[in-house]
Amino acid sequence: MFKKVLVANRGEIALHIVRTLKEMQIASVAVYSQADHNSLHVQLADEAVCIGGNRAQDSYLNMQNVMSAALGTGCDAIHPGYGFLSENSQFAEMCEACGITFIGPSSQVIALMGDKSQAKLSMQQAVVPLIPGSDGPVQDLAQAQAVAQDIGYPVLLKAVAGGGGKGIRRVESEAQLNQLYPQAQAESAAAFGNQALYLEKIMTNVKHIEVQIFRDQQGHGVYFPERDCSLQRFKQKVLEETPSTLLTTEERQKLGAIALQAAEQINYVNTGTVEFLMDQAHQFYFLEMNTRIQVEHPITEMVTGIDLIREQINVAQGHPLSFEQSQLTPNGFAIECRLNAENPEQHFAPSAGTIDYLYLPIGNLGVRIDSHLFSGYTISPFYDAMIGKLITWGPTRAIAIAKMQRLLNELIVTGIKTNQAFQQTLLIDPTFEASQVTTDYLSQKLTD
Amino acid sequence: MFKKVLVANRGEIALHIVRTLKEMQIASVAVYSQADHNSLHVQLADEAVCIGGNRAQDSYLNMQNVMSAALGTGCDAIHPGYGFLSENSQFAEMCEACGITFIGPSSQVIALMGDKSQAKLSMQQAVVPLIPGSDGPVQDLAQAQAVAQDIGYPVLLKAVAGGGGKGIRRVESEAQLNQLYPQAQAESAAAFGNQALYLEKIMTNVKHIEVQIFRDQQGHGVYFPERDCSLQRFKQKVLEETPSTLLTTEERQKLGAIALQAAEQINYVNTGTVEFLMDQAHQFYFLEMNTRIQVEHPITEMVTGIDLIREQINVAQGHPLSFEQSQLTPNGFAIECRLNAENPEQHFAPSAGTIDYLYLPIGNLGVRIDSHLFSGYTISPFYDAMIGKLITWGPTRAIAIAKMQRLLNELIVTGIKTNQAFQQTLLIDPTFEASQVTTDYLSQKLTD
Repeated sequence: MFKKVLVANRGEIALHIVRTLKEMQIASVAVYSQADHNSLHVQLADEAVCIGGNRAQDSYLNMQNVMSAALGTGCDAIHPGYGFLSENSQFAEMCEACGITFIGPSSQVIALMGDKSQAKLSMQQAVVPLIPGSDGPVQDLAQAQAVAQDIGYPVLLKAVAGGGGKGIRRVESEAQLNQLYPQAQAESAAAFGNQALYLEKIMTNVKHIEVQIFRDQQGHGVYFPERDCSLQRFKQKVLEETPSTLLTTEERQKLGAIALQAAEQINYVNTGTVEFLMDQAHQFYFLEMNTRIQVEHPITEMVTGIDLIREQINVAQGHPLSFEQSQLTPNGFAIECRLNAENPEQHFAPSAGTIDYLYLPIGNLGVRIDSHLFSGYTISPFYDAMIGKLITWGPTRAIAIAKMQRLLNELIVTGIKTNQAFQQTLLIDPTFEASQVTTDYLSQKLTD
Repeated sequence: MFKKVLVANRGEIALHIVRTLKEMQIASVAVYSQADHNSLHVQLADEAVCIGGNRAQDSYLNMQNVMSAALGTGCDAIHPGYGFLSENSQFAEMCEACGITFIGPSSQVIALMGDKSQAKLSMQQAVVPLIPGSDGPVQDLAQAQAVAQDIGYPVLLKAVAGGGGKGIRRVESEAQLNQLYPQAQAESAAAFGNQALYLEKIMTNVKHIEVQIFRDQQGHGVYFPERDCSLQRFKQKVLEETPSTLLTTEERQKLGAIALQAAEQINYVNTGTVEFLMDQAHQFYFLEMNTRIQVEHPITEMVTGIDLIREQINVAQGHPLSFEQSQLTPNGFAIECRLNAENPEQHFAPSAGTIDYLYLPIGNLGVRIDSHLFSGYTISPFYDAMIGKLITWGPTRAIAIAKMQRLLNELIVTGIKTNQAFQQTLLIDPTFEASQVTTDYLSQKLTD
């Protein structure tokens, strides 16, 4: 059993993990940058270690400092949360070398899924349908031209080492391909230290549907009800829900089985999420696999009653999964709205500052707010704009939406700008109400 | 369908009902005393009417003022919450006469269950076992002496019109009975306008186990998993949990069937709770029936997923129950700790004042806080000391307890005294951990 776990993250997810460790009676070690010295995860953890300066690369991305903090405090394990080092195979490898359990899959699996074109190839060996494109990286411009002609323009030119919506270019024609190919190569080399590119057909009018899976060290695996994360602003998720009202039970089971088979194929251990695009005919195409807990996992917790962080820790300790596939039939519907410190009226520019007054409208059944905010907290400009997650549950989707509307109406955050009013408009959008939002819906709407 | 509902209450339950009405898209009318003008339920309701001065009898207990507010704002219905007018049959009758739906059972049923000795008699006609005592009110001292001798001292002398732990005297011997009988008669006449008394055997070493039931106008009825509310300080509940770890599934079903049969017997409509005492041999004895929603109803919501306030409103509108008995198998365990503005170090004296800083530790699965508090809120000395309810859920009782310990450790309320530290000591009490707390456990412990 773990005696002490280091939480290699900040913000709401670090707080969430520290709280779970408390509930499990496992000692917790927080790490923090200078800017975060006053954060809740630091205040609540049993120990806290400053790991460097304000910029992420000086602290939360500084592998040596994080590892030193873990070794210096005598930790058995590290929970990476999401973002930062959570999908860094080199860090996972460093943990393995130091005899510290990385709470997540093995470094090899992270590396495999982190290479987006390799990931596609390995998924092809399972029965997972792929988005039409190059089989792996293209060798040169000539091959890129040939593939693009074959699958048809427009196409996406993507960095093999990219991810999270970064390093992606839309190409409309061969002339544009000729122009953008060397640019993309150079940019990718500069950003990721790897100039390899691959091609993918642009899927329009599709939904982002993802399936979280969980496998233990004993080889048992389960899939969770799918999440619909189509409401995105330029590839960034804004609002997520589960389950999708569009899928039948048979489709849910079939998609879940595919996702689980993909995980089995690569001997995946712990939790991860297989992301798909779904077209109007309900055909699914593999997008990528996230080898970590995701931001939107609370909605899955709400419809299944499974504490996913607790389960991650238990499975990393070698325990078998504490539940069976038959317990994962979705109970009701859950929605998450991401609360961001940003100004929608100024192109969603990040908004830093001190929160003068905070009212989080808790209460009633099916309401949950995961946030590291408190009255007097100062949001620094160094990190992600997400400052909280509003989560609601209802026996029907309409009730979950009504509860979310109430939360957004009652929420008070003063001293900074947030996307509260923007989320309110989304919730009454008829396309959203009809479950018809596709991945480019919001970006198109904002461009109009 | 109701268009507008008046909420005839204050504090967390008024807020809870206003929020539910919002979620149901029904207009809400708050009423408030002068002291409560700044309360959240007033701020959030669509309309708000001041119904009088600070003392409850001048406002929340003033039937004429409440009714005028309902008629003046054009309400279809009144939700009474708990306490105040919720079990006042005269008020329910006034609603019936004015053509306003009282969200609760009929005035006759409230009157029947409000007369504690009549309630026992009518329960006797169902198969509900009674606490040994007088069959209805005693006629005079001589009859009281005879009954007491028959059932054995010590006995309780209780006012027929009493309730909520008030108007009760413990009698150890016939000499004491002779002395206390006229006193109790006089006191009862003064307090309740009714001098009738009845006798009950004092049950020691018993648990308070209660069963909430729900019946619709169509005659369908269900019972919910039992709640153990044995942790009481001088008859006031402090901590409640559901389900009891001591009951077998068969006992749960049997007790539920008895409670439901009792409700059917009196043609009960809407929700109510049948309270029992359970002895060490798991024999149950009818204590009383509460004809309203109870403070501790959220723990039932947490293990069943049923929104009880919403269901109350729907059933009052004539809708059939939205769920079946088979859906009410308890899922996991839930606990509620009542947060009171009081000073445990000074005999739990009420503590009024302004809350300088408030941190409600929300977040993670299975955590809920129902409270009308906000930073800057002033607690007035005129009303009940309860200022919030901390509620946790877990797949096991141990996890629910661990979550509650975390909440109590993180909670910050400054500017007033609360029972936060007192609740913390209860949660690590070995007798509580072993589910062995009886109704007099806490009072005895506090007296020691």
